[in-house]
Amino acid sequence: MAHLLSTSCSIKLSSSHRPQSQPFRQCPTKCLTFFTLGASKYPFKRFVLQGRTQQANCVVRAAVAPISQETPTQSSSGPQQNSSEPFKPKRVMVIGGDGYCGWATALHLSNKGYEVAIVDNLIRRHFDLQLGLDSLTPIASIHNRLRCWQSVTGKTIELYIGDICDFEFLSETFKSFEPDAVVHFGEQRSAPYSMIDRNRAVFTQHNNVIGTLNVLFAIKEFRDQCHLVKLGTMGEYGTPNIDIEEGYITITHNGRTDTLPFPKQASSFYHLSKVHDSNNIAFTCKAWGIRATDLNQGVVYGVRTDETEMHEELCNRLDYDAVFGTALNRFCVQAAVGHPLTVYGKGGQTRGYLDIRDTVQCVELAIANPAQPGEFRVFNQFTEQFSVNELASLVTKAGQKLGLDVKTISVPNPRVEAEEHYYNAKHTKLIELGLRPHLLSDSLLDSLLNFSIKFKDRVDTKQIMPSVSWKNIGVKPKTLAA
Amino acid sequence: MAHLLSTSCSIKLSSSHRPQSQPFRQCPTKCLTFFTLGASKYPFKRFVLQGRTQQANCVVRAAVAPISQETPTQSSSGPQQNSSEPFKPKRVMVIGGDGYCGWATALHLSNKGYEVAIVDNLIRRHFDLQLGLDSLTPIASIHNRLRCWQSVTGKTIELYIGDICDFEFLSETFKSFEPDAVVHFGEQRSAPYSMIDRNRAVFTQHNNVIGTLNVLFAIKEFRDQCHLVKLGTMGEYGTPNIDIEEGYITITHNGRTDTLPFPKQASSFYHLSKVHDSNNIAFTCKAWGIRATDLNQGVVYGVRTDETEMHEELCNRLDYDAVFGTALNRFCVQAAVGHPLTVYGKGGQTRGYLDIRDTVQCVELAIANPAQPGEFRVFNQFTEQFSVNELASLVTKAGQKLGLDVKTISVPNPRVEAEEHYYNAKHTKLIELGLRPHLLSDSLLDSLLNFSIKFKDRVDTKQIMPSVSWKNIGVKPKTLAA
Repeated sequence: MAHLLSTSCSIKLSSSHRPQSQPFRQCPTKCLTFFTLGASKYPFKRFVLQGRTQQANCVVRAAVAPISQETPTQSSSGPQQNSSEPFKPKRVMVIGGDGYCGWATALHLSNKGYEVAIVDNLIRRHFDLQLGLDSLTPIASIHNRLRCWQSVTGKTIELYIGDICDFEFLSETFKSFEPDAVVHFGEQRSAPYSMIDRNRAVFTQHNNVIGTLNVLFAIKEFRDQCHLVKLGTMGEYGTPNIDIEEGYITITHNGRTDTLPFPKQASSFYHLSKVHDSNNIAFTCKAWGIRATDLNQGVVYGVRTDETEMHEELCNRLDYDAVFGTALNRFCVQAAVGHPLTVYGKGGQTRGYLDIRDTVQCVELAIANPAQPGEFRVFNQFTEQFSVNELASLVTKAGQKLGLDVKTISVPNPRVEAEEHYYNAKHTKLIELGLRPHLLSDSLLDSLLNFSIKFKDRVDTKQIMPSVSWKNIGVKPKTLAA
Repeated sequence: MAHLLSTSCSIKLSSSHRPQSQPFRQCPTKCLTFFTLGASKYPFKRFVLQGRTQQANCVVRAAVAPISQETPTQSSSGPQQNSSEPFKPKRVMVIGGDGYCGWATALHLSNKGYEVAIVDNLIRRHFDLQLGLDSLTPIASIHNRLRCWQSVTGKTIELYIGDICDFEFLSETFKSFEPDAVVHFGEQRSAPYSMIDRNRAVFTQHNNVIGTLNVLFAIKEFRDQCHLVKLGTMGEYGTPNIDIEEGYITITHNGRTDTLPFPKQASSFYHLSKVHDSNNIAFTCKAWGIRATDLNQGVVYGVRTDETEMHEELCNRLDYDAVFGTALNRFCVQAAVGHPLTVYGKGGQTRGYLDIRDTVQCVELAIANPAQPGEFRVFNQFTEQFSVNELASLVTKAGQKLGLDVKTISVPNPRVEAEEHYYNAKHTKLIELGLRPHLLSDSLLDSLLNFSIKFKDRVDTKQIMPSVSWKNIGVKPKTLAA
């Protein structure tokens, strides 16, 4: 790998080059793709399955354009905006833009007129390979996705393939693209993944914490007015017995009062990594004047957005397995294949949820209304609260309407978490910015169930039951193969 | 390095082998040292000065014994204690036992009858080499220190040289020594060091977070009743406008009440790494039943303890430079060499302080009274609060009594911190366990000043002024050479 990619080269690929096994409709426009490959002097961080393999990383910059159009120029933003002028973001870098939320967000921002670049090392696809998992939906390669987007809309999304833990790579993306805003989805985002074994726990914390530190340093060094929009998680707060505020809480104690960061009680190495990130970002806002928005997102459900609907090759991934799948999506797929809905423990676990169409809307609102220099702004990004039992009940009813025989089983909870608890989290700030929520409705459930039925032949039922235990995590590398 | 140490071997060294330039009195007993060297399969983590050098790490296990005595057996603890019996710790692993607090603690615990092993990668000495710094006091090699301790007291301290970020190495130390308690000083412990450049910031967070994760996994895997005594810092709390409690605060909010982790507001990448550690440890106590004590230590001053006084070769290090030196120690050295006391900014910065003799006492109290399985216990480990201006005033008066002409200057504050603020931190839990504080007295200041005067010819005055700026940290590697 290192040797193959160690020199600069230029590759011309036709759009017929599609490695994935699922056939897609042909994109209507013939495309040319230009790659620039370069090898970093840094060793690639270990990919953790065995923890000892070193691989070379690479920078792939791809600009997709139809033959009849000019190749877009690399730097079109000119000098960085003066901080005294109103901050009008135009150029948005989406780190992790090949993932579930990232892909939908990148397309949405491009569709809304922003100049978008995706930065991604494609590790999410690699996790699937390592663990023997796959998306319910067939997904095109990132290269074909972007060719298709360009063909369908005429809009170009730039692509930088590489690892943000490699600062040399990240620096080049900043110098080349000159972002006004960075949306940072580029983290290992599964709590169960972080609890598989020691290697994955260490990988998760290293990858997420160091990647985010690098983004902060890149902003400080190259684009100090760039607004960081960082995806956090509602899971950072845990389940305190008091109302959860948005990032901060005013405490009166022994006759004195201060507004302080809301206490965090994360419950996996993944959730903890997000807490570490939040603390690091808050410090740099204070010390360096970074402008940042921390979006503490709830559990995302759904798969379709306006943009991914435009062509089947733009289809988003949908995870139903016990490592990367999230509650409502998993239940719909389980119902579609006739598997009992898997409620962990008592099922009273209550969390905030949102439709992926609201994820993309929230991120755009944050970008369009940036934080001030030095401001560390925290929004709780969800629209409704549900317990797991409530979700199971909703999916059961929606399934019955479609003629499905939906059963529910309680399985031993692989996590360490309260199964019955108080939960009331505030989520007004994004509404105040203009969010118009897509609340969970019968029609959405119908749509998600029908979508799951459409692809049910792709379901590997061995991936449904939980395979990762919070208490049994050990130091020996685990392979989750059936 | 890798090749030199890649095979097991046995080396016999006489006590006359002393690489350091400072002559010491000869240890009274002739010693034999047995080393077992082994190389890990993991690459040594990068030492960060240039960020690209890979070095092999090594495991050095040294047992020091006089010729007339038997070599101590490696494993004397037998099977791990049953959790239903009262937990009586006997075997204590001191990670970072070659450092300022770690060395004093290791000797103190050995003197008190514990079986002690030091685990250290000697990186603290390497930092001095890289930055061109040195301890005020001449310090012997760790090997000679331990030979001397054995000669003076007849007590053996085992030595494992290696990096706790290398889990294979750490596993071997756990399996070999079988600790009942681990005192974890093994972290990069300087806020200014973490703010030199991006490489050092990343190193600090990686080293501290991953090292601590590895310790937690080693306890879970190999010694699940082992009590973790982790050195935190009062700096994790920042300077809130309310009283600082010991780890937790009971909050009543909108009519509901919960006791939650005290909100943290750390103000350097080093301090943040300690917050990350605290959060990670708290989670493993809950999820795995780890027993842990987090000692949020104040600023330590002084150099002498009962044990380091026994022989000059046992002398502790004393840092006076602007990177590793702490306020009171630095002021005493400045006064001794006629340099004005360097107050950063307004000097109203107030913190908790303690004598190093209380550090060792507190750690022993925590070990002798272990946390319960699953308990994450937090003690604020300091004895008195002072502002920087108050310390400068105390040193000025004490210096004048010794005939020194002590002046104070205000220098621009290199940090980002409040210079005038409320500060009232609780610190009663260690007192309740039996701590008898050595409060800062005229006699201690006299002693510390005289100690500084004794070694004043070793002072490099170029190291006194602050050289690291919180706001100017950048991505280019910095060398602090004069």
